[in-house]
Amino acid sequence: MNVPTHDTTGPTTGPRLVAERHPGGVDAAVAAARRLVTALLRTGDGTGADMDGIAARLDALADELTEKAPTVPERLAEMWRGEGVTRHDPVTGPENALAPPLALHGAEDRSVSGTVTLDLPYQGPPGHVHGGVSALLLDHTLGVDNHWAGPSGMTAELTLRYLRPTPLFEPLTVTGRQDSVDGSRIRTSGEISAGGKVCVTAEGLFINKRLPRPS
Amino acid sequence: MNVPTHDTTGPTTGPRLVAERHPGGVDAAVAAARRLVTALLRTGDGTGADMDGIAARLDALADELTEKAPTVPERLAEMWRGEGVTRHDPVTGPENALAPPLALHGAEDRSVSGTVTLDLPYQGPPGHVHGGVSALLLDHTLGVDNHWAGPSGMTAELTLRYLRPTPLFEPLTVTGRQDSVDGSRIRTSGEISAGGKVCVTAEGLFINKRLPRPS
Repeated sequence: MNVPTHDTTGPTTGPRLVAERHPGGVDAAVAAARRLVTALLRTGDGTGADMDGIAARLDALADELTEKAPTVPERLAEMWRGEGVTRHDPVTGPENALAPPLALHGAEDRSVSGTVTLDLPYQGPPGHVHGGVSALLLDHTLGVDNHWAGPSGMTAELTLRYLRPTPLFEPLTVTGRQDSVDGSRIRTSGEISAGGKVCVTAEGLFINKRLPRPS
Repeated sequence: MNVPTHDTTGPTTGPRLVAERHPGGVDAAVAAARRLVTALLRTGDGTGADMDGIAARLDALADELTEKAPTVPERLAEMWRGEGVTRHDPVTGPENALAPPLALHGAEDRSVSGTVTLDLPYQGPPGHVHGGVSALLLDHTLGVDNHWAGPSGMTAELTLRYLRPTPLFEPLTVTGRQDSVDGSRIRTSGEISAGGKVCVTAEGLFINKRLPRPS
């Protein structure tokens, strides 16, 4: 178990297993970027919003950041320093505006769970979550559960079953549990449910190996 | 086949099957938002970037957009008007900053393919693409191929096999082909490859039904 815990007082029972959002700095900018991504989709063209002016202001912000950015190898080494939780992944990371983000908590039975409500950026069918987004949330949740429950590794195989459409704009519960460990082969499963009904299930086979961290 | 084609002169052979980016308007703002999301991840804290100021400016932009936004039901009806390609999905959509975006082209043999290079927002293992992001790209590509090849529908089951790590910062080829149609059951497969080597394969079962479009 190489995932440090951050608090024991989250809304879900058990320790929080993913990075905590800091009150300022890049986490605040990313939280605002998330609002912006959703607002762009919620607004669209033909509403009187000055999209060309907004594009120019966003490009200026991106330019301003790029001037301060280290090289990619330097940044990779920096983001993978230490052995703790990642702050930059596209599911839970407070530094990644793609992440909803999903907060996951560990339970005593070695399962993990979290709650998230998704907006228009995550849409597939009308008013519902994209099937590939459900796969992304579940792949990550199974990986976090492996860290919590015992040996962990990289995804070798993942099977998703879509039982009913997963709604946007409603709280979703995402869970994961490690089912078995046989040598280097780890089997972990999980699901996404809404209103007490299971929408998507996942079964994963993980192999206990890891890519080297950049230095 | 209810997907209109947009051009026949793309970099990949065959008609483009996903929405074209418009030169201005929301598409330009979203393209700038993508640059910003990547720049935030590439820069991070401790670089001298004024992240709190950037957060305030992004919040102001989000507020400005939100003032112009229609209600969510109005926006849903608007975005699903017509029967063409979507402009807002998280894989190909020019109105969605989460989308890399991936451009897919149809071939005469009824397969589809596209090329995309992914940056830090899509990272899972160090320097490599998140397994769940590969699942997202493939689920969507298989769905687009279904539209191109014949009957299409919603994902019922999706199996991903991860053969080797998928690199960031290198061109990836994403392909899909419809293998069989048996009544309402559609089987479609695809893969992501880099440098000529297959990194991830996907096999999907789709059911020929659709959620109603909001009106």
